[in-house]
Formats: sequence, structure tokens, C-alpha cells
Amino acid sequence: LSLTRAELKNVRTLQTAKGRRATGLFLAEGVRLLEEALRFDRRPEFLCYAPSVISERAQTLLDRFRRVRVTLRELSAADLGRLAGVETSQGLLGVFQIPERRLPQLWRPAFRNILLCENLADPGNVGTLWRSALAFGFELMILTGSSADPYAPKTVRSSVGAVFGLPVAETDRDEVTAMLKDGQTRVLATTPRGASSLKTVLKNIGDKPLMLMVGSEADGLSERLLASADERIRIEHRDDVESLNSAVAGSILMKECFDFRERRKS
Amino acid sequence: LSLTRAELKNVRTLQTAKGRRATGLFLAEGVRLLEEALRFDRRPEFLCYAPSVISERAQTLLDRFRRVRVTLRELSAADLGRLAGVETSQGLLGVFQIPERRLPQLWRPAFRNILLCENLADPGNVGTLWRSALAFGFELMILTGSSADPYAPKTVRSSVGAVFGLPVAETDRDEVTAMLKDGQTRVLATTPRGASSLKTVLKNIGDKPLMLMVGSEADGLSERLLASADERIRIEHRDDVESLNSAVAGSILMKECFDFRERRKS
Repeated sequence: LSLTRAELKNVRTLQTAKGRRATGLFLAEGVRLLEEALRFDRRPEFLCYAPSVISERAQTLLDRFRRVRVTLRELSAADLGRLAGVETSQGLLGVFQIPERRLPQLWRPAFRNILLCENLADPGNVGTLWRSALAFGFELMILTGSSADPYAPKTVRSSVGAVFGLPVAETDRDEVTAMLKDGQTRVLATTPRGASSLKTVLKNIGDKPLMLMVGSEADGLSERLLASADERIRIEHRDDVESLNSAVAGSILMKECFDFRERRKS
Repeated sequence: LSLTRAELKNVRTLQTAKGRRATGLFLAEGVRLLEEALRFDRRPEFLCYAPSVISERAQTLLDRFRRVRVTLRELSAADLGRLAGVETSQGLLGVFQIPERRLPQLWRPAFRNILLCENLADPGNVGTLWRSALAFGFELMILTGSSADPYAPKTVRSSVGAVFGLPVAETDRDEVTAMLKDGQTRVLATTPRGASSLKTVLKNIGDKPLMLMVGSEADGLSERLLASADERIRIEHRDDVESLNSAVAGSILMKECFDFRERRKS
């Protein structure tokens, strides 16, 4: 079945925040992302494909989606390129429901590792942290302040599939501090002026839940969130650079948490 | 002194690889990058500025460049925006000489930590690794294969000043393997199929020089470079993700090298 002009126009609005808000849908483009969707058993509302450009790998994927009864819609390569908003379209584009993003609905007391990002405006950094969070056993990512939209095409692409594997809550600082009120979660703020290294702090945390907070490179974490932290930690490096890229900084710290939790298990 | 139309056109060609090759010059835009240039005592051939949009911080910087006798050239904010190729120009743009980039000229036997990137096509990843390499005490970055141009505006921006603090060699695999022939440098290849963790390998390396090799996410390192490695290392993570972002992976490993070298010092 081909996509009508009107449907094309509707799908295209999903490139904008307004279109995603109005429909509750988002786009995931390309073979690698859609393979990850299947691996996490997430099915699109429907899948657009351009028969003239799909590879063998894409065809296999298409067949697998067909077998689980996903609706497939045909369109031209040019139309697909316009929908996907990238030049090198691989002939496949999924339209997915945006999952739950309210913090109280997503929060579980059993979570041990939570990442919070404040004012991370770059979609590439948010997507990269999403992927690292999933890789290092984090169970929830919270976005607050002026952070990038997790369901914008650029963020989804940078997440390389983590969009399907790890829930993201979008919220404000009030709700975060309310969730922390029971005092069960150790809150770690990353800041160049931090006094402790994460390794030292982790020894005291042991098996308790932790929330790692990462702020923007230019301004760091807000005073409000810094004040809610139990510990201020920093990453040791030479002072030839003022700071690290925030996706790199967050990933290094999550890796240290992962190694610590793994060592305790064994 | 104002920039003439012809000069404007010349500066604008520096946004392209062809223009940079023809002139041996590159662009560095914005306050933060130019502050780093001064900190590393690197002076531009000349500095363009748009008086109507510069901030107080930019003005201070401008005065410092003037004191060290850097030529300043005035232009309109619109012209500067066009030159810089970014929307949010901060009213300052430096034109710099591209430094030495031949490997034999840059290589020093005294180097202890070298990063090699193969086929890293994304300028953001190359810039981010450059910055992490400087932060974690690496002394040289080598780019090979189809890696991004280190002096393209996007790479320079992502390096956040590392462009002025750490030399980069651009070369082919033959030259790399030739430099390694004396056998003094331990060569570590990063690959998901690696057998060892970096921590274990570092213990055997001790104070010897090491070269850390990072390949592209999609294809990993070439067979050629894998074959030249003394050790194949991997980063432990959950198998919920296939791989990490390559800038994240390289940075995590460089941080482990840094921590190891620091511990040996103390």
C-alpha cells in the first residue's frame, strides 16, 4: 500500500516538536535503529519503505516486521529521503508511539542507577548518554531544564537504539527533588569544583541506589540541583582543558559505576 | 581596517577542504576557542571581528590580541556570520596557520601515550577525542583512513581548543606501521572481540610507550591495523548495546591510561 500525499505530510510533521506533541509519535530511521527496535520487541505503528533503495539487510528486516504483522507502506526513495530528513536514507523509516515519559510513572524504588541530565541542549550528547546509560546498566534517564527532546530525529539517531531499551523521563527540578525526599537515593553532582572522586564515593554507597547528575558544559548544574546533592564529584584530568564533553564525562562516570557494581556481584 | 570583498571571499573558502589545502590556513570561531589559542600562545594570522555584536568578554580578548600585535580586521555581523558558517557567531573569528601534520616530523621517542583513530568520519567525534586526549595526557593524536579533517570548522569547534594544545598527524597505515617497527611502543587495538581489559594490559606495560587504536563504530579497525597490535582490548558493558559511541569508547580508555600513569607517579 502506498502512502497518500496527506499521510506523507503528517509523517513529515514528526520532524518537529509540535508534530510529535500533537500526535504522540516519533520517527526512527535506518536499518540499525529498526533492528534494535525488534530486538527490544518494540513495534512501529507502521513502517515506510522505498523498494528501490533497500539493501538485502533491510529486506530481511522488512520481512521480520511483516511476520509480526507490522503495517508496511511503500513510497519513493525521494519521498522517504524528505521524510527522514537525512541524505543517506537506507530506505526504511518507522513511526513509533512515544512511550511514557512522566517521572512518577517511570520511577521504581528498585532502581539502583539513575542518570539525570540538566540543560543538555545538544541532541547528539543526549543520545550518546542514553546509549552509554543502557550499556552501563543504568535503569532510567531523567532530562530536565532545557535538555534536548529525546524523540527528535537527531537524538533518536545518536541513541543508536537505546531509545527502545531504556526509559526516559522528562520533568522539572521540583518533581526530581520531590522524588528524592525519602532519602533512599544517594545523589551525586558532577562539577569541576567537586571535592571527591567517584571511586571513593562509591565505596560508601555500596548497594544503595544512586542518581548521577550531569549539567551543561558551559554552565554546569544549577544551584538548585547542586544543593540537593549528597556528594560533589569531579573527574581528574590535566588542567590543559577546562572541562570534558558532557557525554564523555557522564559516560566515564557511568562506566565507573558499572565496574563497581560488577565487582560487588562477583 | 575593514576586510575587502576579495579578502572576505578568500576567508570563506577556508570552510572547504580545498580552500584550506590551497592556503594552509584554518578558521577558529568564537570566544572560547580564541581564549584557548591565547592560553597556548598560538596567534592567528589575523582576527576578524564584528564590532556591533561583540560581548564584553570578546572585547577583553580582542584587546589582549591587540597587545600581542595581532592584526585585527573589522566586518559586519552579517558578513562574519557568513564566514563562520554558524548562526550564533560571537563576533570573533581567527584565521590560523595549519601546523605541521606529518607523522615523522611530529613523532618523539619520548611520547608515552599516543591515540590513533582510523576511519572516524564524524568531525564531532574526532574533535571530542582530541579534547579528551589533551585532558588525559596524550601527547599525539594520529588520524588515518577516512577520518574527518581535523581543521574543518566542525572538528575545530568540537575540540574546544585542543586544536591549539595537542598536535595531530594525518597519515596512512604504512607510515604508522613503519614508525612502530622499532618495537618500543605497545600497540593496543580496541575491538568488541578483544580478549583483555585495559587495566590488566596496563600492568604489563608499566612505563613503556603505548599507542591506543580506535576504529569506526560500524566497521571497527581494519585487519591491517588489528594485525599490528600487541593486544586486543575491549570495554566491558552490558550486551543491551552493540557498541559504544567511538568518542566515548576512546575517552574511557584514555581516562584509564591517565589514572594508571598518575598512580605510578604517586
